[in-house]
Amino acid sequence: MKPIVVQKYGGSSLADVDRIKKVAERIVATQREGNRMVVVVSAMGSTTNELLAKARAISDSPSRREIDMLLATGEQCSMALLAMAVAELGQSAVSLTGMQAGILTNDRHSGARIIEVRPVRIQDELDADRIVIVAGFQGISYRGELTTLGRGGSDTTAVALAAALSASYCEICSDVAGIFTADPRVVSAAEMLEAISCNEMLELAAHGAKVLHASCIEVARRTGVALYARATAHFGGGTRVDPVGMGADVDAVGVTGQKQLVRVRAHGEQCVDRVLAASSAARVPPLYLDTDMASADLWFGLADVPDWSAVRKVLSEGLEVLEGVGAVSVVGDGIGLDSIKLERARKVCYEAKVDIVAMSTSPLRVSFFCQEDRVDDLVRALHAEFIERAHA
Amino acid sequence: MKPIVVQKYGGSSLADVDRIKKVAERIVATQREGNRMVVVVSAMGSTTNELLAKARAISDSPSRREIDMLLATGEQCSMALLAMAVAELGQSAVSLTGMQAGILTNDRHSGARIIEVRPVRIQDELDADRIVIVAGFQGISYRGELTTLGRGGSDTTAVALAAALSASYCEICSDVAGIFTADPRVVSAAEMLEAISCNEMLELAAHGAKVLHASCIEVARRTGVALYARATAHFGGGTRVDPVGMGADVDAVGVTGQKQLVRVRAHGEQCVDRVLAASSAARVPPLYLDTDMASADLWFGLADVPDWSAVRKVLSEGLEVLEGVGAVSVVGDGIGLDSIKLERARKVCYEAKVDIVAMSTSPLRVSFFCQEDRVDDLVRALHAEFIERAHA
Repeated sequence: MKPIVVQKYGGSSLADVDRIKKVAERIVATQREGNRMVVVVSAMGSTTNELLAKARAISDSPSRREIDMLLATGEQCSMALLAMAVAELGQSAVSLTGMQAGILTNDRHSGARIIEVRPVRIQDELDADRIVIVAGFQGISYRGELTTLGRGGSDTTAVALAAALSASYCEICSDVAGIFTADPRVVSAAEMLEAISCNEMLELAAHGAKVLHASCIEVARRTGVALYARATAHFGGGTRVDPVGMGADVDAVGVTGQKQLVRVRAHGEQCVDRVLAASSAARVPPLYLDTDMASADLWFGLADVPDWSAVRKVLSEGLEVLEGVGAVSVVGDGIGLDSIKLERARKVCYEAKVDIVAMSTSPLRVSFFCQEDRVDDLVRALHAEFIERAHA
Repeated sequence: MKPIVVQKYGGSSLADVDRIKKVAERIVATQREGNRMVVVVSAMGSTTNELLAKARAISDSPSRREIDMLLATGEQCSMALLAMAVAELGQSAVSLTGMQAGILTNDRHSGARIIEVRPVRIQDELDADRIVIVAGFQGISYRGELTTLGRGGSDTTAVALAAALSASYCEICSDVAGIFTADPRVVSAAEMLEAISCNEMLELAAHGAKVLHASCIEVARRTGVALYARATAHFGGGTRVDPVGMGADVDAVGVTGQKQLVRVRAHGEQCVDRVLAASSAARVPPLYLDTDMASADLWFGLADVPDWSAVRKVLSEGLEVLEGVGAVSVVGDGIGLDSIKLERARKVCYEAKVDIVAMSTSPLRVSFFCQEDRVDDLVRALHAEFIERAHA
């Protein structure tokens, strides 16, 4: 039996008809190497944002179920057009919705988790020698409702399918050549990594790196899927994400920035319970929780909250809400456990004259919270200290 | 139990966010009159054509299954946005895909027929006091595949749902105030009809009138649904389509033009069987068949053929294909059986100096085939003779 390869193509790789044709060629070329192909697609270009803008023009607080109904159309367009483009190259292709592909989720609209993958129909289509194109980002709940996985969910669809199909590897293809030590648009000296461990990648992804989505890395780590981040424009190359891995023997593997963060704060008795209750009532996935039991801060990203205006109303009842914040994280094996490195990082913040409003560490990471508009400056300064100096 | 009203809104009534809000107000106003509401939507504005243009830019002959996957997204967008807009007015609303609404079809992609309606979920949602918004134009085949009903299929969805739900009436709402004696953009003297029989409306719709789709009239006639064509911008008024009806005692009720017709012709033995075999192989719904057994002509409309380029290849094998043709039809009770009226019509063609390439009659209609670019002239001339003169 020929091996199965899962490829995922992001929105900018599918932004127009010409790019869709190019993607079709890349798929067929990979098939010709002797593989059976399963391809997961995102919505074309900025479709998702355009649809959300329409929803917001109609309602400040659209229902998440209806948001899911709306957004799922984006991937469905891409998959149908891509299936046509593959067929045009003479290969048999079929597009499948999340439901048809057997992506079963819980019923948490606009942020569903995949609870099971039943790729029965995909297997049938592969047996019939078809290239299978699957709508990413969407699934069906046990109630029979269409759900979406939240931003970046197409990556997760791809890795979950690769695991369920025992694929030989999963390629996440985008306009970016791989995982970089920092966003090259912010740091000109940023370099591409050849390999990174799942644990480090998870920290980068959870704290602002856009190439791979955190939940997809979690699935890769749990299932051991061989994962690559690669450029749609090339074959091979890119960055390998190792399910297990020691982490490189370097000061840090990357520096990443986040904007549009929000902090909610509660004071006094049961402050922790109150921020957590508010976050779960508003269905906002927390990024960090930080407390001295006298007050509690919970941080989250606006990108995870499609209906921010409604959520803000809920949160504002009894909690302090601070908007316009960002964070910069340095990721590297052991960095959060190494006080010398942490001191070096603090010093960089002072020298860059960035006011730090909070700080958080994990074994693999240190994060500094600051005003949104200082994020890029701090990314450059920390990258110079932890990456460029080490390479010099 | 409150009565159920089914409303259908066309693409131009939903073309942008502001119009969607207006439609939501109209729905809620009808609900406040004491009705339970089921609303069927088309895709916003020119979405369907834009999607088809993308498909054609990718492939001359896209698979009909993939066309269906692509086009179904249009209605899904509209329904989600409209559900949000209704919710914004304080009414509980839920959007349902064709599948969720229980629209079961055969498996003829891009031209499916509704074979059964099982509105179980709609009933449940109505019982929960929700306004139900349904994606028109789409269904699910017994194979579990998404299908579309072909152009104008949203009208059919609405009437079929009205029948299945025993609705008190079904309103087809559009930018047009009702059914006119001719297209007012072509004939300035065209007048709106207060009522028309299903049989006459069927002839008008099948031969170019755009306000109601022929297959929706058929369902209305079969099921006895009370049907109105009305302007989205107003309440009441419009044209009533009577399931049974004598037809008005007039020369004719309307004159309608069609463009983008194609004629395929076979000569010699089994000429009829050959044109029919080609039409069914290419899955082209025939408009007319005309034969003297020495040669056979089959006519159809390009609007019914989403993949014309591929179909033309199939048809060109052994058949003559003539493009760029149109037809003008005069519809009125008994007109095709009245040789004096037919002679009057022929005389109009001579005087308008329009070359007629073929002619066909039914008890309710006479049609003249001519060059596409003479259609409007002939509509005006026949309208002057059969409608304006009678009213003068």
